[in-house]
Amino acid sequence: MNISIINIGDELLIGQVVNTNASTMSKMLIAAGIDVRETAVIADSREAIIDTLSRHFETYDAVIMTGGLGPTKDDVTKKVLCEYFQSELEENATVLDNVKRIFEARGYELTEINRQQAWVPKCCTVINNVMGTAPGMWFEKEGKIVVSLPGVPFEMENLMRTEVIGRLQKHFNTGCIVNKNILVQGIGESFLSDMIEPWELGLPDNIKLAYLPQAGMVKLRLTARGENKEILDEAIVREVKKLYLLAGDYIVGEDMETLPEALAQIMKLHGKTLATAESCTGGAIASKITAMAGASTFFNGGVVAYSNAVKMSTLGVKSKTLEMHGAVSEETVREMATGVRERLGADYGVATSGIAGPGGGTAEKPVGTVWIALAGPDGVETRLKKYGDDRIRTIERTCNEVFSMLIHSIKTPKEQLQ
Amino acid sequence: MNISIINIGDELLIGQVVNTNASTMSKMLIAAGIDVRETAVIADSREAIIDTLSRHFETYDAVIMTGGLGPTKDDVTKKVLCEYFQSELEENATVLDNVKRIFEARGYELTEINRQQAWVPKCCTVINNVMGTAPGMWFEKEGKIVVSLPGVPFEMENLMRTEVIGRLQKHFNTGCIVNKNILVQGIGESFLSDMIEPWELGLPDNIKLAYLPQAGMVKLRLTARGENKEILDEAIVREVKKLYLLAGDYIVGEDMETLPEALAQIMKLHGKTLATAESCTGGAIASKITAMAGASTFFNGGVVAYSNAVKMSTLGVKSKTLEMHGAVSEETVREMATGVRERLGADYGVATSGIAGPGGGTAEKPVGTVWIALAGPDGVETRLKKYGDDRIRTIERTCNEVFSMLIHSIKTPKEQLQ
Repeated sequence: MNISIINIGDELLIGQVVNTNASTMSKMLIAAGIDVRETAVIADSREAIIDTLSRHFETYDAVIMTGGLGPTKDDVTKKVLCEYFQSELEENATVLDNVKRIFEARGYELTEINRQQAWVPKCCTVINNVMGTAPGMWFEKEGKIVVSLPGVPFEMENLMRTEVIGRLQKHFNTGCIVNKNILVQGIGESFLSDMIEPWELGLPDNIKLAYLPQAGMVKLRLTARGENKEILDEAIVREVKKLYLLAGDYIVGEDMETLPEALAQIMKLHGKTLATAESCTGGAIASKITAMAGASTFFNGGVVAYSNAVKMSTLGVKSKTLEMHGAVSEETVREMATGVRERLGADYGVATSGIAGPGGGTAEKPVGTVWIALAGPDGVETRLKKYGDDRIRTIERTCNEVFSMLIHSIKTPKEQLQ
Repeated sequence: MNISIINIGDELLIGQVVNTNASTMSKMLIAAGIDVRETAVIADSREAIIDTLSRHFETYDAVIMTGGLGPTKDDVTKKVLCEYFQSELEENATVLDNVKRIFEARGYELTEINRQQAWVPKCCTVINNVMGTAPGMWFEKEGKIVVSLPGVPFEMENLMRTEVIGRLQKHFNTGCIVNKNILVQGIGESFLSDMIEPWELGLPDNIKLAYLPQAGMVKLRLTARGENKEILDEAIVREVKKLYLLAGDYIVGEDMETLPEALAQIMKLHGKTLATAESCTGGAIASKITAMAGASTFFNGGVVAYSNAVKMSTLGVKSKTLEMHGAVSEETVREMATGVRERLGADYGVATSGIAGPGGGTAEKPVGTVWIALAGPDGVETRLKKYGDDRIRTIERTCNEVFSMLIHSIKTPKEQLQ
């Protein structure tokens, strides 16, 4: 069974808004064992919708559309779907109740134009959207499916998760699927592949392995297909255990997407606390940590020591150190890390200082030179990195290096995380 | 003249990587007066490329494709283009020289597989890619154009800017176009629209105005079309001057995209310095500022005061204040802002403290409650905001509010920024 996605919206097409809906939907569909073949972005126009929908309907088993369901006259999707399926709009009682409920909760009066949200094509099955006023709509024709969803990301995501995916799996009888993600860090993809080859070759036929390389790490995705979820779950647990025996030193997380999430899990597991002293990363490490709910359980705080004066006054870096070795030096990051660890009372202190660029480079310390220090209960570890001349990439890579150093410093060998 | 974009890549299709290329390309094309009608993402497969290219070639005047140009066997775009245009691959001397140069610069040996990067379809015009080994390719057929570009974002962007857009404008004789972006902040879109209506109605016929609402602000885009760039430039300058007379108090930037950029311009213009004390934003304000090159000219540094202990030790917040009013209170942010301003020796100190959620809310201070303080030469200004229960959105909105408070506090009335 295969599917396509059509995201409707002028703001997406002109690039004013980056289209995150396509990747969110693709991930969810693929995790459910549904093969995504094409995603398209088109304008809020009758012609574009009819043309693209016709082509996709002919080519794929199912099409999911988002957007163009608002109450203003720019939004034409419902009218066009009526035309395409030779149906007509009628007021739907379930949708009207939902719209009224939402307006009451927000304390707004329901106007005539908002009431139009309850008008849907006669021939569709309504998928009620408890998070917003635009309903989801499910159309069947010649065994194929067209779904129309609101374009607001969290409304779309909720409808996909609670309604659409289950209905698609049932309609197309896709069977049961179980996914498991394993984050691997500190080893290159080709070395990892050699290391786990014996295990990979021994995987049962119904479990597939995918390598998904990401910035600074590799995500391994195991996908098991069958009829019974419990049996699949057990098979996955067995295989993950075997994987730990081979690559346990490099596994930093399960069922998560990012290194900060892996760090949070390990810090909480070991009951340790952290403080940051950032120069070249300028708060990026702290902000990636505090973007996660519950960060306060292990993160005490940090200092963005952008100027030398702040490095001295707030972190206790000696003026002699800065004079003799410069701000971007092993000695300075060492004092920054121990200073922030001590002053903020944390188990671990990390520090970064570098030349993110584009200016400020010298022959000896070119743009992209970064010093990192990690101060912990067993002393201080430092690292020198030479990144390229792209400011944003240097900041990102430094953050990933810091997260990786911390994780590997706290994690015990082959420790299983779940 | 209209165009479509096809981004090729399995990693985009399965949602592993968010497709930013489409929005980058759309923005550049629209700024050049070229109408983007559709963007599609498809797999690295012969069938998908042939099918989608055929459909788009029939429908649009030009098609730009990205991706699938690497040297590995997953990448099939070049072979498929040969098939589509009934051509064959041949080694191109210009591309080979470029590939050799890049490998030499990186100190790698040129292998047979990398040398294949120099093989291109006979029928195309090569667009040399100085930033990478995969060349751009330009195809003409029946007056229509197909362009194939590498999928690496910065290589694609550079080729678009330096080569592709100019060639398209020339081929389709699109005339001259001049764009001007004006950032407006601190006034709702409908109020702004009423305020500048007399000016908008008086715009010359060849200058169009677009409203592009973004998080916490409105971007106004003026687009002038004609034959002569100088005349268009002058007309734009004249109109922007008139706009300042009506809405100058709310104009915070010209020819930029974000509030931090506007803040940087105004801080530099007025020669002022800044320090940040962040609790609920957790370093996000500092990291948005330091992501910009040259931030060190006005940003001294900051403190991420996540725990109460850090608020006291690093910022000098009194324990009595925390006890009596709590961490999320007007009194606490006031002391944080004045403390960081003084200790980090800056002209302005800003502070945030709030409940980003999902936990930690109370009846009196629900999730989404945020206090902000701005300490400057003329005293302290505080603001209470009530955002929703989405952690990331609360952090983003708090950052925008802080940038806006700072800009309006430093900017003098109707000050023209360029």
